[in-house]
Amino acid sequence: MAPKKEDARGRLQQAALELYRERGYDQTTTSEIAARAGVTERTFFRHFPDKREVLFDGEPKLRLALTTAIAEAPDALGPLETLLTAFRSTEKMIEANRPFAEPRHHVIAATPALQERELAKMASLTSALAAALRDRGVDQRLAMLAAQTGMAAFGQAALHWLEDPTLSISDHLDRTFLELRELALGAH
Amino acid sequence: MAPKKEDARGRLQQAALELYRERGYDQTTTSEIAARAGVTERTFFRHFPDKREVLFDGEPKLRLALTTAIAEAPDALGPLETLLTAFRSTEKMIEANRPFAEPRHHVIAATPALQERELAKMASLTSALAAALRDRGVDQRLAMLAAQTGMAAFGQAALHWLEDPTLSISDHLDRTFLELRELALGAH
Repeated sequence: MAPKKEDARGRLQQAALELYRERGYDQTTTSEIAARAGVTERTFFRHFPDKREVLFDGEPKLRLALTTAIAEAPDALGPLETLLTAFRSTEKMIEANRPFAEPRHHVIAATPALQERELAKMASLTSALAAALRDRGVDQRLAMLAAQTGMAAFGQAALHWLEDPTLSISDHLDRTFLELRELALGAH
Repeated sequence: MAPKKEDARGRLQQAALELYRERGYDQTTTSEIAARAGVTERTFFRHFPDKREVLFDGEPKLRLALTTAIAEAPDALGPLETLLTAFRSTEKMIEANRPFAEPRHHVIAATPALQERELAKMASLTSALAAALRDRGVDQRLAMLAAQTGMAAFGQAALHWLEDPTLSISDHLDRTFLELRELALGAH
């Protein structure tokens, strides 16, 4: 029986991460990734445009989940509370992604070209969050400032969660948003 | 009399910005920039490694000014107040740079490859600010969160200043940091 499409996709991601960590991102080719996953290179390119995008596959799903959660958040919540609620709503998705997120983080940290790509994806996601806040009636300049600040806190919480798996991502989010509030109040 | 080195550098920057706006960044060559500035291409490469770096020439000077101001800020200031004080201390430098900053902003906004570079430079500057805060005794995780939040506010203030020159950059900074405080308090 031929493997299902989703299996090939998952195996390609797994194989790519293994090879990036073993040999380095720059030294790994798409044909090596395909061989490790047990598929043809043509199958690789049916799933991903290039070896870089294998690492950014989860972004559209996260973007949709976050913008939907922002739209559905209770009206009474302010912009940063809305963002915290949205980030917390992705807990299951993020926790399930841990086996992929951890090696991915190390590969990106070791590869400047991937860091630039990650920053560009985060900037694009930030703009999407700002647009979702504006759709709730948040003033344009406040929406962008809130989205950037919230994304900074989300990024920091995700880093702490990678380093410390004894707390859930939601617990790390609560802690980081509390730190943000205290910083803004000048409590530190 | 041969033009002074600094004159050539300034003329090259001016010529590059004019050409990037007239023809687009991708359609402009280093030899065209040199010709417009009235110098040889060899002189271009004595000043800049490539046509991209012409746009990021001011970053080291800004980084030094900000990290120095953070080190010299009064001990009593919290992390975000320290950053606001540091950003405000660069007012003269930033206001003097307006004729360059304005066309530069439009060129970068129109060129995705330059946006990625700008984001990478901002991320590197953010890390430098976090390190300067740690040197003041700020806890490591708070220092990074404060640096990211402060840079987000600085970036937004700079955008508002480009759009509205009737207020100084310091006034825009005060306003944006106040908005940040109100956001964190849930006042919006």
